Amino acid sequence: MSVDVGRRAVLRAATAGGVGVGLASASLAVPAGAGSGRRGPRVAILLYDGFTALDAVGPYEVLCRVPDASVVTVAKRVGPVRTDTGVLGLVADRALHQVREADVLLVPGAGNRGVIAAMQDEETVDWVRRLHEGTRWTTSVCTGALILGAAGLLRGVPATTYWASRSYMETTFGAVYTPGRFVESGKIITAAGVSAGIDMALHLASKLSGDRVAQALQLAVEYDPQPPFDTGSPEKAGPELQQLALQLLEDAAR
Amino acid sequence: MSVDVGRRAVLRAATAGGVGVGLASASLAVPAGAGSGRRGPRVAILLYDGFTALDAVGPYEVLCRVPDASVVTVAKRVGPVRTDTGVLGLVADRALHQVREADVLLVPGAGNRGVIAAMQDEETVDWVRRLHEGTRWTTSVCTGALILGAAGLLRGVPATTYWASRSYMETTFGAVYTPGRFVESGKIITAAGVSAGIDMALHLASKLSGDRVAQALQLAVEYDPQPPFDTGSPEKAGPELQQLALQLLEDAAR
Repeated sequence: MSVDVGRRAVLRAATAGGVGVGLASASLAVPAGAGSGRRGPRVAILLYDGFTALDAVGPYEVLCRVPDASVVTVAKRVGPVRTDTGVLGLVADRALHQVREADVLLVPGAGNRGVIAAMQDEETVDWVRRLHEGTRWTTSVCTGALILGAAGLLRGVPATTYWASRSYMETTFGAVYTPGRFVESGKIITAAGVSAGIDMALHLASKLSGDRVAQALQLAVEYDPQPPFDTGSPEKAGPELQQLALQLLEDAAR
Repeated sequence: MSVDVGRRAVLRAATAGGVGVGLASASLAVPAGAGSGRRGPRVAILLYDGFTALDAVGPYEVLCRVPDASVVTVAKRVGPVRTDTGVLGLVADRALHQVREADVLLVPGAGNRGVIAAMQDEETVDWVRRLHEGTRWTTSVCTGALILGAAGLLRGVPATTYWASRSYMETTFGAVYTPGRFVESGKIITAAGVSAGIDMALHLASKLSGDRVAQALQLAVEYDPQPPFDTGSPEKAGPELQQLALQLLEDAAR
């Protein structure tokens, strides 16, 4: 099958009237810094055995398109890191000892197995603590907050985490659980569970590059959510679905 | 730092009164098939050079927890596959020739470079066409629809795709562009851009395992979206943000 694959043809903006306008033909107001070669924010995403893929990939998909940003995945060892379900691997391109500073640190969450191991791993926790000293933003998604907690970063700090770990975060690390898709406390931003990392990343993009870029990035990932149900928080879902959710998580965990 | 890491402590359901209830202590109504060892849906996720990570990972995060589901990543060669930005690699665990059938086929999208190469790659397009013959559901996210189109699966079919590729999908492959986060046409379900794959996957989970499981999975990934802006569709964003979004996509593409 022969198809027209001119690079300008496949992706193009639609005007209000529905007529396509190729990218090359439009005048662009590019934000300061974009394409200028100026050094943008360096984003380090921690990967560890048993992490939850979407916790990392949601924010990655937004932050990698912040003008001039560089994103790097970091783990104890370079190479594939398997997720909580064991059925997916993401590649870490740097080892912890190779990344000594970042403007943005992102710590994804995991299920029980992964987050417990990470909290107990001194090398990982030390790395988080040391990197945090030089970050502009230290961020977590889901139970990633517990790793920030294990690094001693959440004592007395308003924060959020996965819905099923709220009380654990408070009682174990002295964080002040605060409702919200994400909670900003000084330079620490914690997101709620899994998909909340996307919301947080849009907020972070606005901090790094302004609202207009963040708004364009929301469109870039077509984030106009319309889930077919409305059970995305424990309050909306109720206790029975909470139990079922935890059961399904446990059943899929390797 | 010594922390309580009892497996029941880290993740637990919160009752309405705020008192934690450990998973093990609650009686569970597990859906038919869960944990029974009965063969569940086999999900094959196509990876190809330049694909968009969230297109694959959003649905993966939901579908991998459908009771008894098995999920496998498939590419031309086993091993790491780099995404559209080049800064992230996901591991394909099977080669195309190793996967001859699946209940669910998921084809993620990509930027210009990745989707053009995939549409022109006979081995990939043939594999999609052949797998489709035996699927219960053939699905795409974002410009993944164009690969379904290249396989000849969208002629006259109501479908959606990335906002910037709607007219290309219609004029090139004869699909009938239909608005929606996802569009179900017989056994073909196409999702809109990138993050829309999450919405589609919840719908698909309900088809595979019922509404209750899908609702619990929405909670499992805490998908209670509250983006800080409301610019996630081209209609809401307007022409200027459309151009900026395409520019940011192009700047980040490798």
